[in-house]
Amino acid sequence: MQTDGQLVVVALGGNAIQKPGEKGTATEQRANIMGACRHLASLINKGYRLVLTHGNGPQVGSILLQNEASKDQVPAMPLDICGAQSQGFIGYMFQQSLRAAMAEHGLDLPVATVVTQTLVSTDDPDFSDPSKPIGPFYSEEEALVLAREKGFVVKEDAGRGWRRVVPSPDPLGIAERDAIRQLVDAGVVVIASGGGGIPVIEEEDGTLCGIEAVIDKDLAGERLAQDVGADGLMILTDVPRVAINFGAPDERALDRMTLAEAERYAAAGHFRAGSMKPKVLAGMRFVQSRADRWSVIAGLQSAEEAVDGRAGTRIVAG
Amino acid sequence: MQTDGQLVVVALGGNAIQKPGEKGTATEQRANIMGACRHLASLINKGYRLVLTHGNGPQVGSILLQNEASKDQVPAMPLDICGAQSQGFIGYMFQQSLRAAMAEHGLDLPVATVVTQTLVSTDDPDFSDPSKPIGPFYSEEEALVLAREKGFVVKEDAGRGWRRVVPSPDPLGIAERDAIRQLVDAGVVVIASGGGGIPVIEEEDGTLCGIEAVIDKDLAGERLAQDVGADGLMILTDVPRVAINFGAPDERALDRMTLAEAERYAAAGHFRAGSMKPKVLAGMRFVQSRADRWSVIAGLQSAEEAVDGRAGTRIVAG
Repeated sequence: MQTDGQLVVVALGGNAIQKPGEKGTATEQRANIMGACRHLASLINKGYRLVLTHGNGPQVGSILLQNEASKDQVPAMPLDICGAQSQGFIGYMFQQSLRAAMAEHGLDLPVATVVTQTLVSTDDPDFSDPSKPIGPFYSEEEALVLAREKGFVVKEDAGRGWRRVVPSPDPLGIAERDAIRQLVDAGVVVIASGGGGIPVIEEEDGTLCGIEAVIDKDLAGERLAQDVGADGLMILTDVPRVAINFGAPDERALDRMTLAEAERYAAAGHFRAGSMKPKVLAGMRFVQSRADRWSVIAGLQSAEEAVDGRAGTRIVAG
Repeated sequence: MQTDGQLVVVALGGNAIQKPGEKGTATEQRANIMGACRHLASLINKGYRLVLTHGNGPQVGSILLQNEASKDQVPAMPLDICGAQSQGFIGYMFQQSLRAAMAEHGLDLPVATVVTQTLVSTDDPDFSDPSKPIGPFYSEEEALVLAREKGFVVKEDAGRGWRRVVPSPDPLGIAERDAIRQLVDAGVVVIASGGGGIPVIEEEDGTLCGIEAVIDKDLAGERLAQDVGADGLMILTDVPRVAINFGAPDERALDRMTLAEAERYAAAGHFRAGSMKPKVLAGMRFVQSRADRWSVIAGLQSAEEAVDGRAGTRIVAG
């Protein structure tokens, strides 16, 4: 097993697995994942050790829809269980594809998915004003029934209909950190913290309890990166670099940002909530945690260049 | 971490998670799993090291029903992906409950679920005559449409309607054996090979490919037990002991069977296919693999006695 080389946590967006406009068939998702895994296998072939985390937005959305559509026949499962299902589903597809992509380089490393719970606190301010829309769209009438009968918080979503909203609290730690660390240290390519991990709170007696929330996968990936002692955090998305003045005539893509610059840009509102903002925040936190750590936000297609500092936006200490 | 003591693979039936007659709500399944975990935690408290595997029949059945009911809105997923989802779902619930049950003894061992693929061969005779019914019941007309349009093999099921049948091939090995072994050796309580594992075949180039089949969880648990170097294989079910002449006036429950006796009883048709037969076969294979290994088939409620040889049916070399 390969245990030298820098350890990098790669966070891959759910849209890299099910692309916008696709129906989300198994065939489409497998093809997308195989494409992503070719980039990951190239990184491994360069000598990097990888831990992979991934989004699950489209997949957990489909599972919620399936639960909703068949609730008269099969009891609908709560959000934490749907998230666990999506981890099994996506992790399984990555296990197979990553192995196949590594085989193209003659590499044969063990790969494993660990079902991951992420610790959050109900003191998080997001619990008092949930903001993350999930699942299907409803009419106002349906939404108000769900609010009354199930206690869902519902909000009107930009003229497209009503949706359930849940809190998106800050991740505090990875419950399976010891197990994941053991595997990483043994040279296993680990897939963990899928969809940001299943959000759980720790009761006073130390037991964990799943809650109805979602966790940003980049912020959870950053916790994971700290927990496994990674050297780098690579956030792969569908734009090549972080930009300031995004969408305006003076838009400018950045090759690198110092922590001070990133903080200034974030405070000035350059990064969109739920999109680039948590990615930049995750990168900043990781670089802040230890001076020799690096972070890069890049397009999936240029992962090989980005890991060497030749693509994407690098966040550096100063 | 606790790394002394005998290593035991415990195989738990899917009916211990969703009991016959229950609707299968999350609350019901959590309560059942917590009940099972109290027994498992007692074994750990006695000093045994555990690896847990479990069935997924009712859960994957529900997932298939959900896929079927919402297929006009969400593309239905193939059986391998549904199986992966059930591993995430059930593994997650066990992770939480096992941790809570251990806490009642003041134990705090790490617990992790590994999404598991199980190797099978398409040369297996079950591929030429699939026998395992899965998913919802159909009318004859619906069944024949599915057979024509999707290539499903369908059979009439004991007057209850038509069902899809899939092969149930013999498990040949656990793809994630290295990772699971690493965790077990590090003292992690591992949940693996859920539902018998996701059935995959190994292509000539070494890549794995999911197939539409199901694997008996006890036979897969036996492969797992060999792969992790277990001392014991404990198959927990809803009857207290293995019986010969089952259901007849001269029915006799057995405290122990030698391999020779077990072979004779099996050949004489005492054990029902898909029920006690694979459990006895799994126990026999494990005991045959090394003379100092033991196997027991017992009721979940008497797990604590069975591990010490005071309940259940033990299979011994001779």
